[in-house]
Amino acid sequence: MNGKYATLKDVAKLAGTTASTVSYVLNDSKERYISDEMRRRVLEAAKDLNYVKCSVASSLKGEKRKIIAVLVPQFSNQFFTRIILAIENVADQFDYVLTIYNTFDDPKREKVIINRMAQHRMDGYIIIPTYEGVKNTEQLRKIGIPMVVMDRPLEGIDDFIWVTTNNYQCGYKGAHYLALKGHRNIAFIGWNSRINDLDSRKNGFWDALAASGITSEEAIVIDGEFSEEDGYKMTKNLLKTRPDITAIFYGYNVQAQGGVRYLMKENIEIGKDISVMLIGSPEWAVTGYNNFTHIEQDEYNLGKSAATILFSIINGENQENIQNIIQDCSLYEGNSVYDITKTKKERML
Amino acid sequence: MNGKYATLKDVAKLAGTTASTVSYVLNDSKERYISDEMRRRVLEAAKDLNYVKCSVASSLKGEKRKIIAVLVPQFSNQFFTRIILAIENVADQFDYVLTIYNTFDDPKREKVIINRMAQHRMDGYIIIPTYEGVKNTEQLRKIGIPMVVMDRPLEGIDDFIWVTTNNYQCGYKGAHYLALKGHRNIAFIGWNSRINDLDSRKNGFWDALAASGITSEEAIVIDGEFSEEDGYKMTKNLLKTRPDITAIFYGYNVQAQGGVRYLMKENIEIGKDISVMLIGSPEWAVTGYNNFTHIEQDEYNLGKSAATILFSIINGENQENIQNIIQDCSLYEGNSVYDITKTKKERML
Repeated sequence: MNGKYATLKDVAKLAGTTASTVSYVLNDSKERYISDEMRRRVLEAAKDLNYVKCSVASSLKGEKRKIIAVLVPQFSNQFFTRIILAIENVADQFDYVLTIYNTFDDPKREKVIINRMAQHRMDGYIIIPTYEGVKNTEQLRKIGIPMVVMDRPLEGIDDFIWVTTNNYQCGYKGAHYLALKGHRNIAFIGWNSRINDLDSRKNGFWDALAASGITSEEAIVIDGEFSEEDGYKMTKNLLKTRPDITAIFYGYNVQAQGGVRYLMKENIEIGKDISVMLIGSPEWAVTGYNNFTHIEQDEYNLGKSAATILFSIINGENQENIQNIIQDCSLYEGNSVYDITKTKKERML
Repeated sequence: MNGKYATLKDVAKLAGTTASTVSYVLNDSKERYISDEMRRRVLEAAKDLNYVKCSVASSLKGEKRKIIAVLVPQFSNQFFTRIILAIENVADQFDYVLTIYNTFDDPKREKVIINRMAQHRMDGYIIIPTYEGVKNTEQLRKIGIPMVVMDRPLEGIDDFIWVTTNNYQCGYKGAHYLALKGHRNIAFIGWNSRINDLDSRKNGFWDALAASGITSEEAIVIDGEFSEEDGYKMTKNLLKTRPDITAIFYGYNVQAQGGVRYLMKENIEIGKDISVMLIGSPEWAVTGYNNFTHIEQDEYNLGKSAATILFSIINGENQENIQNIIQDCSLYEGNSVYDITKTKKERML
């Protein structure tokens, strides 16, 4: 016990032979004659030193490591942890394990992680990229290591496999429902991301409002950071500057959580004093006395689709049928949106 | 692009030289003279083949990989994801990345993962073990790879470093509070785990009740699986067989979530018709209209402590000061437990 993994050389030294002999013995190779006595000595030395076979050696021989890597931007966000669970389920069927990394949406961190993963010779990758994803995945793509991109695209290129949510539809469906309930002074609280594709949520929002004749004087879009804290702050500022707002549509569940915290603190009753809608279905939104109207993204199915595609690539199946998946959203009707055409007394019944 | 990581041999072949020459060039070694022309050819071949340095080679030379492995049993449980976030924060300060594995509390899976991690030559481990943890970590402990065990112990041995919650105190504090509020017919819903240490929660529960003169005829302990589904089922069965129960104490937040789902479905008002207490502070319990009385475990500090210890071992600091940490719990008073001495009308005010 010295706190270090024993090497082939360490085993060879203790057994009084060469590293290549040790390798032959430990891999049970028949290519070369090795005496029973030497075999015994090598095995004993390996045992004494707690030798663990090194994965790269196997990889060099073309064996699969049976490990895939998953990169997500936020561990505190159930959208991502649910995707991971679904991927694990599929990986398990193929006898693979997952190694999971949190990029914190930081491109530098993403770069370091991808580099270390490549050094570890992962069999495949599922990546929810940062805005620098194109650059950071370049080498993997050049080598052609099996990879599926999720949720956000690699912007500016198109030779990658993508499994995502229909962001435009998510924005459209939510805004459409709020308009149906008679709201006009609606705020969308979103993320000032550098990933252009996510703007589709806002585009869907505006298009649905325009279809109901709601103008950009009545409605508003506010952008901030992808965090609970910023959801709190944006909600606070919004209600101070725009007291006419009757409905808030949160584009991201972490921001919604902060916003709801602010509303509760101010005793603003959700579904009575103000309507709240969010994209995503975190547990807090539908547990106990919370029953928020929201847009479901079915993370489980997203993760399952991505993993299924990844393993079909890893296993060398016919890749002609592989295509990008853009998954539909659906509306879940809770009690956090009221019908503005009814009086407050009617709403409370 | 052939979908495989290039090896030293591939680079050597393309450059028309040997693998050892390639290794000298790529590691910029001065040990041997290599002509500028050969150096150029090797670098070009490496570039053409998108060669990525292999981490095990560095490890053989005693370099740190700067990756630690974290094993947790449940990704869908915020208790564990919060611990991970805290570990990442510390790891980041030391410029390490985390590779995270979900064991699903399955000893076989744990064994496979630990074996593969050792093959990958991780620099250190933080493990929340299954009930077979002793056996599955044996080799790592023999080698003496830096390791911190969290939450649950390696039962039957004592030569490991352990960072955990005071489970006895969690059970005691929760039960004591329920007794203070006048409850006597109290149920504890727990996990029929094979990890003996977790029984401390039940021991604390019984001891607190005994201190208030509450007997095992009045109170009851029910055990089931560590899942939301079983929390739902156990709550349902409990209320059918023991209609006299006025307070439920959930030992685990995932079971509490299922239990709360059942109570809501049956329109049993929490904090009015029945009192609910839980160990843990998942977001759902304290967000929006939910404000559950619960026992806080401070996962963030648990993870921080474990990671700090791990890095002090990895960095070879004086290990005499390292000792196990058993962290205290605290009571958070929400509105899910009512005072039984008050009438229902009084409670609703």
